[in-house]
Amino acid sequence: MTDIVTFGEVLAEFMALETNQSLGTAGRFAGPFPGGAPAIFIDQAAKLGSSAAMVSCVGDDAFGRMLVERLAADGVDTSAITVRPEATTASAFVTYYDDGARDFIFNIANGACAEISPRQFDTVIRGCKLFHIAGTSLFSGHMIDLARQTADRVKAGGGRVSFDPNVRKETLARSGAREALTDLLSRTDILLPSDSELNVLVDIDDDEKAVERALALGVSEIAWKNGKDGARYYDGHNVSHYPSFEVDEVDPTGAGDSFGATFCTLRTQGVAAEQAMRYANAAGATAVSRRGAMEGTSRRDELDAFIAARR
Amino acid sequence: MTDIVTFGEVLAEFMALETNQSLGTAGRFAGPFPGGAPAIFIDQAAKLGSSAAMVSCVGDDAFGRMLVERLAADGVDTSAITVRPEATTASAFVTYYDDGARDFIFNIANGACAEISPRQFDTVIRGCKLFHIAGTSLFSGHMIDLARQTADRVKAGGGRVSFDPNVRKETLARSGAREALTDLLSRTDILLPSDSELNVLVDIDDDEKAVERALALGVSEIAWKNGKDGARYYDGHNVSHYPSFEVDEVDPTGAGDSFGATFCTLRTQGVAAEQAMRYANAAGATAVSRRGAMEGTSRRDELDAFIAARR
Repeated sequence: MTDIVTFGEVLAEFMALETNQSLGTAGRFAGPFPGGAPAIFIDQAAKLGSSAAMVSCVGDDAFGRMLVERLAADGVDTSAITVRPEATTASAFVTYYDDGARDFIFNIANGACAEISPRQFDTVIRGCKLFHIAGTSLFSGHMIDLARQTADRVKAGGGRVSFDPNVRKETLARSGAREALTDLLSRTDILLPSDSELNVLVDIDDDEKAVERALALGVSEIAWKNGKDGARYYDGHNVSHYPSFEVDEVDPTGAGDSFGATFCTLRTQGVAAEQAMRYANAAGATAVSRRGAMEGTSRRDELDAFIAARR
Repeated sequence: MTDIVTFGEVLAEFMALETNQSLGTAGRFAGPFPGGAPAIFIDQAAKLGSSAAMVSCVGDDAFGRMLVERLAADGVDTSAITVRPEATTASAFVTYYDDGARDFIFNIANGACAEISPRQFDTVIRGCKLFHIAGTSLFSGHMIDLARQTADRVKAGGGRVSFDPNVRKETLARSGAREALTDLLSRTDILLPSDSELNVLVDIDDDEKAVERALALGVSEIAWKNGKDGARYYDGHNVSHYPSFEVDEVDPTGAGDSFGATFCTLRTQGVAAEQAMRYANAAGATAVSRRGAMEGTSRRDELDAFIAARR
């Protein structure tokens, strides 16, 4: 019995050491850091004490071994991560610009994680309370099918589905992507959009009307992330705003995943939405203050201390 | 009319900055450097003044643009390098150990370069004098088919075929690899083995008997690379040994490709085997003394100066 399950990319991330460093010019990079939106989500869930399983594939290589070891060390059930000897573990290169923009090169859709089989879910999905879908993982029709099928299985078993649309230009450029995401919205219980992602997704500029549309599709809770501007919570009855904690931004990668995982994990543990939002904000703030996407995940005692120090 | 044509991987290489740095532990890397055995070969050929074309694919990304620009700047005809928007340009990570061992992680068989179409050869193969096959490029049945078909087309047009078996554990592990390489041997005019590659390939421990076997299969010239121990030349009549030039080894990657390209290019230009071997040794020595695989390629005047300085 695993409370929280996700699937998708576990990847080795390389970060340019200099700001404004082009990915097309020789420079210096730090890495491999463990990454991948669902990998960070599940790492954060395990650190908060829930039983948490990752469904993915890695290659028979040093990146894959590093990722599995790291997730296992943080308490994630890695039994549903399969080694594909003919494939290479996914990787990503990222560089940051002064204006806050990022530039990426991905080996994800062509990485081992693209080869997840539906049967890999079998041993971890029974009794699952929350199945999380990271929008970054929906890079192929196969991955979208896995998300849809698994969401249906989990909901049929009484579990809930969380969805972080994480819409990027790469995602939306794919034909049929919007339709697939909207379809997943209708299977979603907890929606975790950032900035204007929900507006883009439902094609409605007005935030409140976009929220109404999502609720009408069946979403029951929305934790809307706005970075430094804090987060909003909607459940169809109340709207609440939770200001962010002030921290020095070191590396924003993974902050949204830590936020979402903290919110969903605490909600699954029975914590009230208001408290879950505060802890999610604390998890997001902790994440942006640390270099490396998965270095930003926090244990419950760390979040307690973080919040207490800022009271 | 292009004198020298090759095909296969053009890739972005990342090198660990520290010796003995595991690819599974966060560290620092330098890159992206232009790399790929056939890319280095054709860059070296162009620098020696021959018309030289590369057949490959890249993604619509910074790595691919960097590679095409670099090859073009060095004089390579890049018109047969196609952009595959759905794919990612190939990349590789390498780390070096004190004992001379290297460890790699490749995104090659899953990179854009795996999607070369036979038709990409059409515009550059007419009148081709030398078609070069890098063993590293034979990572799929499709690539082996391309090598075989193109070798036959070039030989039918009166051109010659060079082959650097570049056998690595990854290559030999693949089922049918040995048979495919032996099949290519029978289409090879200039063979460019390193160390014990030819012995492994023909399954004969004795060097002279292994050479006899290759010559019996139809090979007409063998330039056998032994790193610091120099190189041997065989043509079925004579055997000659050419000592290597002494240099401080900075980065051995690409040295064999620079050697092979120099030998083949000068032979194609009509230079005598003895002189071509000396220049090939000079090109190899220059390559190992420079960091970055493609940084090691040399113009003719550089090789003249290198040899003159060591007389």
